[in-house]
Amino acid sequence: MSECVFCKIVKGEIPCQKVYEDADFIAFLDIAPINYGHILVLPKEHYPNFFKTPEEVLADLIKVSKKIAQAMCQALNTDSFNLGININKSAGQLVPHLHFHLMPRFSNDGLESWPGKEYKKGEIEKYAKKIKKEIEINF
Amino acid sequence: MSECVFCKIVKGEIPCQKVYEDADFIAFLDIAPINYGHILVLPKEHYPNFFKTPEEVLADLIKVSKKIAQAMCQALNTDSFNLGININKSAGQLVPHLHFHLMPRFSNDGLESWPGKEYKKGEIEKYAKKIKKEIEINF
Repeated sequence: MSECVFCKIVKGEIPCQKVYEDADFIAFLDIAPINYGHILVLPKEHYPNFFKTPEEVLADLIKVSKKIAQAMCQALNTDSFNLGININKSAGQLVPHLHFHLMPRFSNDGLESWPGKEYKKGEIEKYAKKIKKEIEINF
Repeated sequence: MSECVFCKIVKGEIPCQKVYEDADFIAFLDIAPINYGHILVLPKEHYPNFFKTPEEVLADLIKVSKKIAQAMCQALNTDSFNLGININKSAGQLVPHLHFHLMPRFSNDGLESWPGKEYKKGEIEKYAKKIKKEIEINF
C-alpha cells in the first residue's frame, strides 16, 4: 500500500518517534495524543482493519502491546491506561492500517467515558437474541 | 473471587443477557451500553486486570472477540465498532475482572473521540526517550 501513511512510517519514508520495533511490529508516539505518551502499536504488514487482520497477528499484537503498555505506564508513573481499537470509519478509524491505541490515564485527567444508555423494558432481550443468532451462524 | 460481580455472572448467580459461552469465555450485553448491543467479553477465570492476565489468555480473548464482533456488526447492520479495554481505576475500569468492551458504532451516533493534545517543541522526543528506556529494560 504505497499511499498508506503507516506503511510509509514502517519503511522510514515518514519520520516518527519510535519506541519499539521488531521483525513484525512497530510502536511510536501518536502526534495528537489524548494524554502525553499515547502510543500506536501496529503490524508492519498492511491490514486495512481489525476484521481483515488474521487472528494470529491480533494475538501477537496484543501480547507485544501488553509489554509496551507496562513500560509506558512505568515511564509515566501511572497504573492506568486504555487500550483502544477503532474499527472502520464510524468508529473513528482515521488511517486504514490496523493499529492499537495505548492511552495513558491519570486521575482527574478530565477525560470522560461515553455515557451509558438505558434499555427500554424488553429491548435488551431482543438485542441479545439478534446477536446470539448471528453468533450461532458465524461460529 | 466470591465477591466479584462478573464471577457471579459466570457462575449463574446473577442473570445476564448472554450472547456467547464456551469453556473459557463468556459474552453478554452491557446493561449500560454506549450504543444498544454493546457487548462485554471476558475470561471465566478471574484476572483483576489486563496486566495480571496471562498473554495466552489475552491472545485467545482477542480471537474470540473478533468472531463475536463480526456477529454483532452483522446483527446491527454496521461495519464499525470500538474495542476498548479499561485498565485500572483512572482508566475507568469499574469491575476488577478483565473484560473487553465491543461497542457498535454508527455514523452520526453523537459519540465524540477524545480531543488530541499538541506537544510543545522538543517534548515528544522526551516522552519517546523515557518510554523507550523502559521498553529496553522490560523486553
